[in-house]
Amino acid sequence: MSAPGPRRIDLNADLGEGFGVWRLGDDEALLEVVTSANVACGFHAGDPVTMRRVCRGAVAAGVSIGAQVSYRDLAGFGRRFVDVAPEELAADVLYQLAALDGIARTAGGRVSYVKPHGALYNAVVHHEAQAAAVVTAVAGYDPGLAVLGLPGSRLLQAAAEAGLPTVGEAFADRGYTPEGTLVPRGLPGAVLHEPAAVAGRAVRMVRDGTAVAVDGSVVRVDVGSVCVHGDTPGAVHLARSVRAALEAAGLVLAPFAG
Amino acid sequence: MSAPGPRRIDLNADLGEGFGVWRLGDDEALLEVVTSANVACGFHAGDPVTMRRVCRGAVAAGVSIGAQVSYRDLAGFGRRFVDVAPEELAADVLYQLAALDGIARTAGGRVSYVKPHGALYNAVVHHEAQAAAVVTAVAGYDPGLAVLGLPGSRLLQAAAEAGLPTVGEAFADRGYTPEGTLVPRGLPGAVLHEPAAVAGRAVRMVRDGTAVAVDGSVVRVDVGSVCVHGDTPGAVHLARSVRAALEAAGLVLAPFAG
Amino acid sequence: MSAPGPRRIDLNADLGEGFGVWRLGDDEALLEVVTSANVACGFHAGDPVTMRRVCRGAVAAGVSIGAQVSYRDLAGFGRRFVDVAPEELAADVLYQLAALDGIARTAGGRVSYVKPHGALYNAVVHHEAQAAAVVTAVAGYDPGLAVLGLPGSRLLQAAAEAGLPTVGEAFADRGYTPEGTLVPRGLPGAVLHEPAAVAGRAVRMVRDGTAVAVDGSVVRVDVGSVCVHGDTPGAVHLARSVRAALEAAGLVLAPFAG
Amino acid sequence: MSAPGPRRIDLNADLGEGFGVWRLGDDEALLEVVTSANVACGFHAGDPVTMRRVCRGAVAAGVSIGAQVSYRDLAGFGRRFVDVAPEELAADVLYQLAALDGIARTAGGRVSYVKPHGALYNAVVHHEAQAAAVVTAVAGYDPGLAVLGLPGSRLLQAAAEAGLPTVGEAFADRGYTPEGTLVPRGLPGAVLHEPAAVAGRAVRMVRDGTAVAVDGSVVRVDVGSVCVHGDTPGAVHLARSVRAALEAAGLVLAPFAG
Repeated sequence: MSAPGPRRIDLNADLGEGFGVWRLGDDEALLEVVTSANVACGFHAGDPVTMRRVCRGAVAAGVSIGAQVSYRDLAGFGRRFVDVAPEELAADVLYQLAALDGIARTAGGRVSYVKPHGALYNAVVHHEAQAAAVVTAVAGYDPGLAVLGLPGSRLLQAAAEAGLPTVGEAFADRGYTPEGTLVPRGLPGAVLHEPAAVAGRAVRMVRDGTAVAVDGSVVRVDVGSVCVHGDTPGAVHLARSVRAALEAAGLVLAPFAG
Repeated sequence: MSAPGPRRIDLNADLGEGFGVWRLGDDEALLEVVTSANVACGFHAGDPVTMRRVCRGAVAAGVSIGAQVSYRDLAGFGRRFVDVAPEELAADVLYQLAALDGIARTAGGRVSYVKPHGALYNAVVHHEAQAAAVVTAVAGYDPGLAVLGLPGSRLLQAAAEAGLPTVGEAFADRGYTPEGTLVPRGLPGAVLHEPAAVAGRAVRMVRDGTAVAVDGSVVRVDVGSVCVHGDTPGAVHLARSVRAALEAAGLVLAPFAG
Repeated sequence: MSAPGPRRIDLNADLGEGFGVWRLGDDEALLEVVTSANVACGFHAGDPVTMRRVCRGAVAAGVSIGAQVSYRDLAGFGRRFVDVAPEELAADVLYQLAALDGIARTAGGRVSYVKPHGALYNAVVHHEAQAAAVVTAVAGYDPGLAVLGLPGSRLLQAAAEAGLPTVGEAFADRGYTPEGTLVPRGLPGAVLHEPAAVAGRAVRMVRDGTAVAVDGSVVRVDVGSVCVHGDTPGAVHLARSVRAALEAAGLVLAPFAG
Repeated sequence: MSAPGPRRIDLNADLGEGFGVWRLGDDEALLEVVTSANVACGFHAGDPVTMRRVCRGAVAAGVSIGAQVSYRDLAGFGRRFVDVAPEELAADVLYQLAALDGIARTAGGRVSYVKPHGALYNAVVHHEAQAAAVVTAVAGYDPGLAVLGLPGSRLLQAAAEAGLPTVGEAFADRGYTPEGTLVPRGLPGAVLHEPAAVAGRAVRMVRDGTAVAVDGSVVRVDVGSVCVHGDTPGAVHLARSVRAALEAAGLVLAPFAG
């Protein structure tokens, strides 16, 4: 739909992942870097005060708000697979999404997309029933909401089948296999740390739609958004490097939705 | 504002007060009796599956949906005063209200009013800052929402000052003092159990706006809605008796909002 | 190891599975039927007040106290598998076990065995790492504690390898396959409801060590304890029938531990 | 009871106040400074993995372990007064205390004292019923456990009446009124930040039993332990300064219990 002109790209990160007195990551710094904020909704992190603060900040910064929905698992930060029944998962996702949207609207914005968090993110790459449950919740709430996830995942397929806009994300700081999937954490080449390398990789992904895999081969990557992290000082620096490199390459940083 | 015709009155009760595997009260039976359902929103009771089931039932039965907001206190069922800061309480109320409204809308309805639960209900009779926090949350979310509470409470005063519609409720099964306040639980005459007496009392309250106090004097009561309970088989029977008596007296049972 | 004399058998059931205002099952009735109480420890059910009440009742009734440990999952009543890391599971089990033991000791008793609940019970039938984590927690806390579980489960194997006493339980109201495993719920013959049939089955299991499988064949069952339920009025009646039949058959009801 | 010799003094701080992925304060650094660790027990902070790690560290460092019991309030970090019934509070305290003690014993140590946290700490300065509930729980669990709290508080009075050892603590970084109470936070002189001043104040409190109040007068302070904080880098530095000054003054740092 975009008119000819400079290529636009979205940068997303997880925000609002504290709870009560606890903080995780530097929300304020990230709001100056990203164009889309995946805001925790209370099930793995994100108390209502934090959600409100992040929504206000996102509205002020022109950053899109996404619902980062999760299993109900504060103690595990949503990083543990839970074999929740699809009917329950759909209700849990709807609850989180609606709560954040109400807070976002009261802050002058709105939720414009949904991105699953942690173990749920990983599960819905393959788990048919849980992927369908997430899509049911999102489509039932607002069929105009986009779904952000892993390219080729069952989640994005189900979302597309349901008529929801879908956006695939790439990870500039992760290694890719020759098949175009992520190198699992723990294996050599899984994570890249050097800012210049990561930033250069991001530019190539967005401009050319390719990445150099761990074996040196070139693989295609689908990039609707580039995911960055902000839970350490180094991560914020990396995120800034990625943004600066994309801008230096003539790309326009802009939300994909909202 | 109502045109001449039969007097209309609302019956409200708490619904959806289970959590997970646990149930409390007979939601299905109450949906056939009341015209307004105060639905628990997850902080003192009410998991998302239960919220969805009750909202669907309320929409099917033509019953108005209210957000029964609470302190965050599952272990205490919201019956313990919590000295939460107003800023936090406002965010907590907004979160609950928005979550329920999203679930209600996905079920084809919407939240049309807010009623605090338990210890919060009692606190905002006098607690200025907490009453203001509840009103801030409601008005910020939707200034068309009504607030249901105790007549003369600080909550209803603050809501009216903020331009929100307010509805005072009466309790047909509670004794009144000569000053028109409720006899505290534990004192003689605090609670009435005999269905015929309670039903007769409800009719008098609605038709005449009066009640006989514990000392035999007649006091005025402000009745926008009559509150009934459903957490025991006897309570459901009592609620049915109240509805039957009101109808027999020519009154029309109808929601005050929604 | 027992001297000649009447055969002794244990009856166990889940108790204290309410939370806050919510109740599940009739703890008082069950304390008159069972000889071992699997007491919920707060992670799937069981607030401290309930735990204390059940422990006091068990001590008064001469019923052994077991820690019914669970995944941290109040909303799902511990019925959902959680892929928790073994290190975390061991700490969670230790926390629950120690909390209950302290309450039991303050009530004049003590925890004498551990039985996993719900999805954790099912997981540790086969899940090596989670079974080992449970055993690590129990053995670390007190190597004299028994472990109650499914005969042949990985849990009981690991417990035995660690030197812990183990007790296998049988289910008089469940159908068995010709291989001696339980017929999965949902399949024909999975659950028996007729009290006389269930009671007769319990007697045969305990006296003869056998059960008639769904295909009519006779299978061996290992019975250190018979599990009964109490979460419905019918279930309590069934439990009483089982106990009466065992006593009528000359068996002595007695805890296996404590 | 102590024999003649160098004066001994205890330094206590709150440890283990993270939850799941979240951390608060530098437990490792504090274990090298304090002689008593107030370990969070899961109700305001402190998941079982954290509790186990801190207990192991305390045992290794020869630091006494205290149960830092709290209202059930993760979202508010236990900083909000909760009007919980004494019977419930006693059960909640017992649950937390027992859970930590079991973890401590499995780590080779044990809980040797109890210190209420946050809003509960403040409440039991005056709240008779809640103070009595805490004491009931502690004395019921183990009448040899000490209670650490504010000198002159209702808690320490009730504990002494119940025969429990009591220890009053002083705050080297807080201002005192001429009456010997703490200057409320928010008022001028409530908190001192300068390490040398705080350290000098600590020495005077311990050696002389006095402090200079905000009006320049000298007040007596009862010092069984000096409380320091570690939730910021500056706080850890301050704690180290206090310890160094006490040692330089010839005092011996040693736990009061354990």
